[in-house]
Amino acid sequence: MNAQIEKHEDSRLTRLQEILASGALRAAARLLKSLAPAEVAHLLESLPPTQREILWSLVDETCDGEVLLLVTDEVRTDLTRDMSTAEWLAAAENLDLDDLADLVHEMPDTVTREVISALDEQHRKRLESVLSYPEDTAGGLMNTDTVTVRPEATLDVVSRYLRLLGEQMPSDTDKLFVVNRDDKYLGVLPLWKLVSGNPEDSVAEAMSLNMQPLPASMHESDVARRFETHDILSAPVIDQQGRLLGRITIDDVVDIIREEGEHQFMGQAGLSEAEDMFAPVLTSIRRRALWLGINLFTALLASWVIGQFDTVLSQVVALAVLMPIVASMGGIAGSQTLALAIRGIALGQLSGKNARHLLLKEMAVGSLNSLIWAAVIAVIAGIWFNNLTLALLIGTAITINLLFAAISGATLPLILDRIGIDPALAGSVLLTTVTDVVGFLAFLGLATLFLL
Amino acid sequence: MNAQIEKHEDSRLTRLQEILASGALRAAARLLKSLAPAEVAHLLESLPPTQREILWSLVDETCDGEVLLLVTDEVRTDLTRDMSTAEWLAAAENLDLDDLADLVHEMPDTVTREVISALDEQHRKRLESVLSYPEDTAGGLMNTDTVTVRPEATLDVVSRYLRLLGEQMPSDTDKLFVVNRDDKYLGVLPLWKLVSGNPEDSVAEAMSLNMQPLPASMHESDVARRFETHDILSAPVIDQQGRLLGRITIDDVVDIIREEGEHQFMGQAGLSEAEDMFAPVLTSIRRRALWLGINLFTALLASWVIGQFDTVLSQVVALAVLMPIVASMGGIAGSQTLALAIRGIALGQLSGKNARHLLLKEMAVGSLNSLIWAAVIAVIAGIWFNNLTLALLIGTAITINLLFAAISGATLPLILDRIGIDPALAGSVLLTTVTDVVGFLAFLGLATLFLL
Repeated sequence: MNAQIEKHEDSRLTRLQEILASGALRAAARLLKSLAPAEVAHLLESLPPTQREILWSLVDETCDGEVLLLVTDEVRTDLTRDMSTAEWLAAAENLDLDDLADLVHEMPDTVTREVISALDEQHRKRLESVLSYPEDTAGGLMNTDTVTVRPEATLDVVSRYLRLLGEQMPSDTDKLFVVNRDDKYLGVLPLWKLVSGNPEDSVAEAMSLNMQPLPASMHESDVARRFETHDILSAPVIDQQGRLLGRITIDDVVDIIREEGEHQFMGQAGLSEAEDMFAPVLTSIRRRALWLGINLFTALLASWVIGQFDTVLSQVVALAVLMPIVASMGGIAGSQTLALAIRGIALGQLSGKNARHLLLKEMAVGSLNSLIWAAVIAVIAGIWFNNLTLALLIGTAITINLLFAAISGATLPLILDRIGIDPALAGSVLLTTVTDVVGFLAFLGLATLFLL
Repeated sequence: MNAQIEKHEDSRLTRLQEILASGALRAAARLLKSLAPAEVAHLLESLPPTQREILWSLVDETCDGEVLLLVTDEVRTDLTRDMSTAEWLAAAENLDLDDLADLVHEMPDTVTREVISALDEQHRKRLESVLSYPEDTAGGLMNTDTVTVRPEATLDVVSRYLRLLGEQMPSDTDKLFVVNRDDKYLGVLPLWKLVSGNPEDSVAEAMSLNMQPLPASMHESDVARRFETHDILSAPVIDQQGRLLGRITIDDVVDIIREEGEHQFMGQAGLSEAEDMFAPVLTSIRRRALWLGINLFTALLASWVIGQFDTVLSQVVALAVLMPIVASMGGIAGSQTLALAIRGIALGQLSGKNARHLLLKEMAVGSLNSLIWAAVIAVIAGIWFNNLTLALLIGTAITINLLFAAISGATLPLILDRIGIDPALAGSVLLTTVTDVVGFLAFLGLATLFLL
C-alpha cells in the first residue's frame, strides 16, 4: 500500500510536469483546483524554477495567501518577487488573522499599509495585537478567533449561542474559552464536555481548570513542548494581566516541530531549514560560500599544524599515509557524542546539572573504544609498514584523539549554548577542528619525539 | 519569559536531583504526583542511571504504562529490565488500546499472554485487530475508541446519546464517525458541526464527506504527511472492505514527526533516534563499534590511495601538508548537497523525476564554487610554499573534487533509496569516502604527473 501511495504522489508530480511541458495549462489548472493548499505548496517546492513559475501563475488567486504561507521562506521570496500590490491584496483576503500576520511580515511596506487600511476597526486592532509580538512567540503565533463564554451561563444557553453562530464558528474549534467581564481567562469548556454534559449545568461547573494559559511572550519551542507534553489541541494565550488574547492550534505547532527537526539536520551542513532545493545557482553559491570559507580556515589550521612537522614527514612517508586515519576516527567518535548532546539540549534534557554525568560516561566510552580501535589500527599499521614503533605511535595518537573527541563532543554544545551560539550550526565545524588539530598534533608530535 | 520558564524547568530537574541525592524520597514522590506522564518521562530521560532507577521506583504504578510509552525505546528497555509480571499487568491497566498494543510489543511473551487473557472478549478482539498490523502502519497506530453514529439519526438524538455516554466519552474526541449497518465508513460529524447545527437535521445532512479514511496498511510517515497537509486532528482508519477499524489522533502523529526529524539528525552520526543519552557504557561501546569500524574501513581505503603515491610524497612534503584541505573542502561541499537531497527524499519532494534538475543545479553550484575556492586556495598555497606548479595542482584538484562532491551528494541518496538503504544513515559515510578518495587521487595523482 505504501508503495502504491508513493507511486500515486509520484505520478501526480510526473503528470503535472508532463502537462506543464506540453503546455496544456488548462488541464494543469484543473488538476490544481482539486488539491489542498498544502499539496499545491508541496508541488511548488518540488518543481524546478521555470515550471514553478508557470504553476504559480495557475494557482487560484483566492488560494495564493495560504499557499504562500505553506512554502518555505526561500520559495516564498522566489514566488513573491514580482507580485503587484493588487495581487498581494488578493492573497491577503480570506486569511485567518494569525496567517495574515505571518504574511504581513513578508510584504513590502507599501502593501502592508494598504492591507491594514482595508481592514475594519476590530480586525485592525486584532492584527496589531498579533503583530506587536515577535513572530516566534506565542503572541506572534496565535489566532484571535476564539469563541468565549461566561462562567455563569448554562450549557443550554451556550448551545443555543453556538447554533446562532452556525457556520461562522471557526471550523477547528475543539473548545470554548471561559472569561469574566474583564476578559480575564478563567478556564476552558471542551466541546466534548459541552455535548456530554447536563444542559442545566453552568459553564463554571462543567469547565476544566487544568489548562494552563500560555503567556504571549512564551517562545515557540516552549509552546511546542507544552503541546507535546500535555497532548493539547488548542490552548489559550494571555497577556501579562491575564486577559485572553487568542489561541494557538496544534496545526501551527506541528509546523514548529517539523522545522525544529529540519533545523538540526540542515544546520549540521551549514544550511538553513528554509533552503530551497531549487534555489537559483547564484543564490546558492553566495549562501554556501560562508560555510566553505569557514571550513577552509579550519582546514588551513590543520594544515599549518601538519606543516610544523615537515622534517619528520619528509623522512617517514608512512606518517602522511596514516595521519588521515587518526583525524577521521576522532571526528567520527566525537560527532556521535556531539549529536547526543545537541539533541539533549534541544529537548531541554541536558543542562549544566547533568552534563557532568554525560561527560564522564562519554569519556568512559571514548577511552574504552579508543583502546579497542587503537589496538586494531596499531596491528594493521604495524603489519602494513612492518614497523613496531609506528604501530605504537598511531595507537597512542588514536587513544589521545578519541578521548579529546569525547570531551569536546560533550562540552562544546553546552558552551556554545551558554554563550548564545546555536550548537546545531557551529558544533560540527568546531568539533572537527579540534579532532583534526589534536589528531595531527598527537600523531606527528609523538613521531618527532620517537622517530627522529 | 522564555528564560524564566527554562529556569523553571531547569530548577525542577535540579530540585529533583537534590531531593534524590538527599534521600528524601517522600518529597520526590510528592513532586512526581504533580507531573504529567510526559513530564515524568522527560525527567527520567534526563537523569543518569542510578537516579533514574530511584525515580522510577517512585512513579505511581497506575502511571507506569503511560510513562513507559513516552520514554525512548532504550530508556524503556532499561526501566523494564527487572519488571515482574505483576508490575507489567499493573502498567498495562488504564491504558488506551493503541497504547496497550504498543506496550505489548515490548513485553515478554509470558506477560503478553496474561495481559490478553485478562481482557474481556470485546477488548481482546480489538487488541488483536490492532496487533495484526505492523507497528509502523495506520492499523498499528490506531485506537479503537471511536464514537460512531448512523446517518439516519437526527443531531438531537446524537446529542442525547452523547449525554448518556457522559464521562465515558473519550476525552479527546473532536468528531464522531458515521457508519452504516455493516460498519462501513461513510463520513465524519465534527463536534463543532453537531453543536452549531439544527437539532432536527439528520446526521447525513450535517456530516462532512471530505475526510478521506486512512487504509490500515498505510505507512506511518504517509499518515503524518496526510495529517500535516490537511490539518487533521483525528482521522478514521478502515480495512480493505471499507469498514471502520479505529481512529488516529494528532498526538500520535506529533510523535512520528518528532521521531522522523531525530532519525535524520542522529542517523548522520550513525546513531538511532532511540539512543539513550545515559545508556550504560558497555551498551554504548558495542553500539558505536560498528560505526567506527565502518569508518575505519573507509579511512583505510583513503590511506591506501595515499600510499600509492609515497614516492612523490617523500619528495614533496608540501603535498602531505596540503592534501587534507582538498579532501575536507570536497567533504563539506558534498555534505551540503547531500543534506538537501536527503530532506527532499524524506519529504517526498525529490524523486527520479526532478533529480536531473537538482543534479544539474548542484553541478553548476559546485563548478562555480570550485573555481572561486580553487583560486583562493591556489593563491594561499602558492604564497605559502612559493611554488606556482603546486598552486595550480591544488587548484585543479579542488575543482575536480568539488564537482565529484556535487554529483555524489545529489545522486547517492537517490541510489541508496532506490536499493532500499536509508540515505540518512549511509549517505554521509559513503559521501566522505568518495570525496576523500577522489581528493587524494586527484591531488597526488596530478602531483606525480607534474612534479616528478
